[in-house]
Amino acid sequence: MNVVSKKILFNEPLTLGSGEMLPGFELMTETYGELNQEKSNAVLVCHAFSGNHHAAGIKEENAKPGWWDELIGDGKTIDTEKYFIVSLNNIGGCHGSTGPTSISPKTEQAFGAGFPEVSVSDWVETQKLLADHLEIDCWEMVVGGSLGGMQALQWAISYPDKIKKAAIIAASSKISTQNIALNEVAREIIKKDECFHNGDYLSHGETPSKGLKAARMLGHITYLSESNMSKRFGRKLQDPLTKMDADINYEVENYLQYKGEQFAKTFDANSYILMTKAMDSFDPAKNFDHDLVKCLKSIQAKLLIASFDSDWLFPKEYGLDIQMSAIKAGIDSTYIELNGEYGHDSFLFYSNDYSVALKNFLNSNG
Amino acid sequence: MNVVSKKILFNEPLTLGSGEMLPGFELMTETYGELNQEKSNAVLVCHAFSGNHHAAGIKEENAKPGWWDELIGDGKTIDTEKYFIVSLNNIGGCHGSTGPTSISPKTEQAFGAGFPEVSVSDWVETQKLLADHLEIDCWEMVVGGSLGGMQALQWAISYPDKIKKAAIIAASSKISTQNIALNEVAREIIKKDECFHNGDYLSHGETPSKGLKAARMLGHITYLSESNMSKRFGRKLQDPLTKMDADINYEVENYLQYKGEQFAKTFDANSYILMTKAMDSFDPAKNFDHDLVKCLKSIQAKLLIASFDSDWLFPKEYGLDIQMSAIKAGIDSTYIELNGEYGHDSFLFYSNDYSVALKNFLNSNG
Repeated sequence: MNVVSKKILFNEPLTLGSGEMLPGFELMTETYGELNQEKSNAVLVCHAFSGNHHAAGIKEENAKPGWWDELIGDGKTIDTEKYFIVSLNNIGGCHGSTGPTSISPKTEQAFGAGFPEVSVSDWVETQKLLADHLEIDCWEMVVGGSLGGMQALQWAISYPDKIKKAAIIAASSKISTQNIALNEVAREIIKKDECFHNGDYLSHGETPSKGLKAARMLGHITYLSESNMSKRFGRKLQDPLTKMDADINYEVENYLQYKGEQFAKTFDANSYILMTKAMDSFDPAKNFDHDLVKCLKSIQAKLLIASFDSDWLFPKEYGLDIQMSAIKAGIDSTYIELNGEYGHDSFLFYSNDYSVALKNFLNSNG
Repeated sequence: MNVVSKKILFNEPLTLGSGEMLPGFELMTETYGELNQEKSNAVLVCHAFSGNHHAAGIKEENAKPGWWDELIGDGKTIDTEKYFIVSLNNIGGCHGSTGPTSISPKTEQAFGAGFPEVSVSDWVETQKLLADHLEIDCWEMVVGGSLGGMQALQWAISYPDKIKKAAIIAASSKISTQNIALNEVAREIIKKDECFHNGDYLSHGETPSKGLKAARMLGHITYLSESNMSKRFGRKLQDPLTKMDADINYEVENYLQYKGEQFAKTFDANSYILMTKAMDSFDPAKNFDHDLVKCLKSIQAKLLIASFDSDWLFPKEYGLDIQMSAIKAGIDSTYIELNGEYGHDSFLFYSNDYSVALKNFLNSNG
């Protein structure tokens, strides 16, 4: 598999949905496989909340494989021998693309809290500029899970003739009140860390890592299913020799402490806030009198909508709601409910049914 | 309704399940109605996680009614014209009974983080001492919701001949891995507040109110149901004039901010930690080879087990598990699943079915 990592500079100013402007921006990208001569075999992979451009392959020795390495590669579900896969870190993120930790040309300091609000539509606009840069006129498929699935849906709405298929996995056309509430708790935890400094922690030489850690611990619970946690940890007590903290009793506490701490080392707090706000505000039907059927009518792409039975964060009702609206809108759409052991996170992992469904969808006639 | 508030001092040292000792303790109590001459009409009401002794009535003008005022009173479900109801704040709490904010006779300072670990069994032991003090030999009923229901269950196990009926509402014989995980996140948030000072915030003249607030915001989400939140708040935007914080977009965010802030003014952080730890560790079957059937065999009380359909924190499977074990143990037990609009919190509110079930159970022959 041919893997190319590249940071691409876009010099033109970008006006965001909020009305604010970025004076140019960079996208950190990874591509897998080869673009054919007709440029007709391109697949765009959109990352979820805390994902990034590193979707497949192993970049350096001992490094982690990409977050969707189980599904992307030579002979795999999204076959790099047939398709050219494009992955990127979205703007507002913290893994190489322009985001709150980037230097603002205006102030010559990190954007920090001053980084403008971004939306799923803004990401699709930057991805369209990336497609233009790569001279890809039309994606064979845009695919993503969770927040990534929202981008796939938005692509189908924003650019009906630039995308043949959209695979919308473990996603929603708008998140629930409970999800907004959980995101608000995470933001509250981060913002009240004494090292947050109203988002300007970088200029203070600090990071709100305690807040980030606790926010991720909460997030992690919502990404897994209750049954998966029960099976893995049950009520097993933690070995005292490997306790992260003296007050810990149970294995699950130690696991969350560890996961939270690891995450806090690699993620930016302002990005966390921006990404959750983008998730909260996603609601494409808003511009169509809150009528999702009307909103989907212009879609020309085929849709595959997939939900996982153990996902309680984005339960199957969300997928079924998009599907019913798509059917009512008279567009070409299919729906599957998959067994997934890992709750919401199931979209990250290979299973035979999942793989067959995605592969057959991708290989079908557009 | 005759309401009596009283703080009762117990001079004898109390050895806790952990092996630690309290050199005497106080219980803040409220009673409703009159104890009859035979002392045979007493009902013990056990409070849930953040509840207290003030279960019914209005103490002062403009003050809040008790947390179960809808069900306790003259002519109400638990009828104070027939029954003498005893309510108390549990030790380790922060509403008048001995807890982390009380002065330790040893150090002459607040116990703070030095307050010993408490358990549901410890609470039952102190409640037994309270019964002795009141010369109540046998409760007509012990009743509680959530963590209160665990106390009712423990009473039936610990004192088979001192309790005629136990009403175990929205409770569990042990909480799930996910619940432990959520409690650990709440503890993490509180403990990492810079004002926590390893639990000795009182001696620093501070309170970790930011941590308490965020922990409660999280808790509040788990007490409600997704459908209730959707119905109440949906995706409605908050009126800018009444925003608790400039970054707030949605009504549900503002609501949680408000609720969290109110809670942080009245609750103690060490109590929060102690109470969640007591909830985590409750598992009476542990002492019976993890066999709940064996654990319940000695029970002589009649049981009423009730779950609410919208409760996702303590879902009906928990209630059904106690019920199945009770049936296998050959004890007198009945189960109902109630419609509840408010998720886990449904146990706090009156409904006709709920009231009839509880009233008929209480009035039945013991």
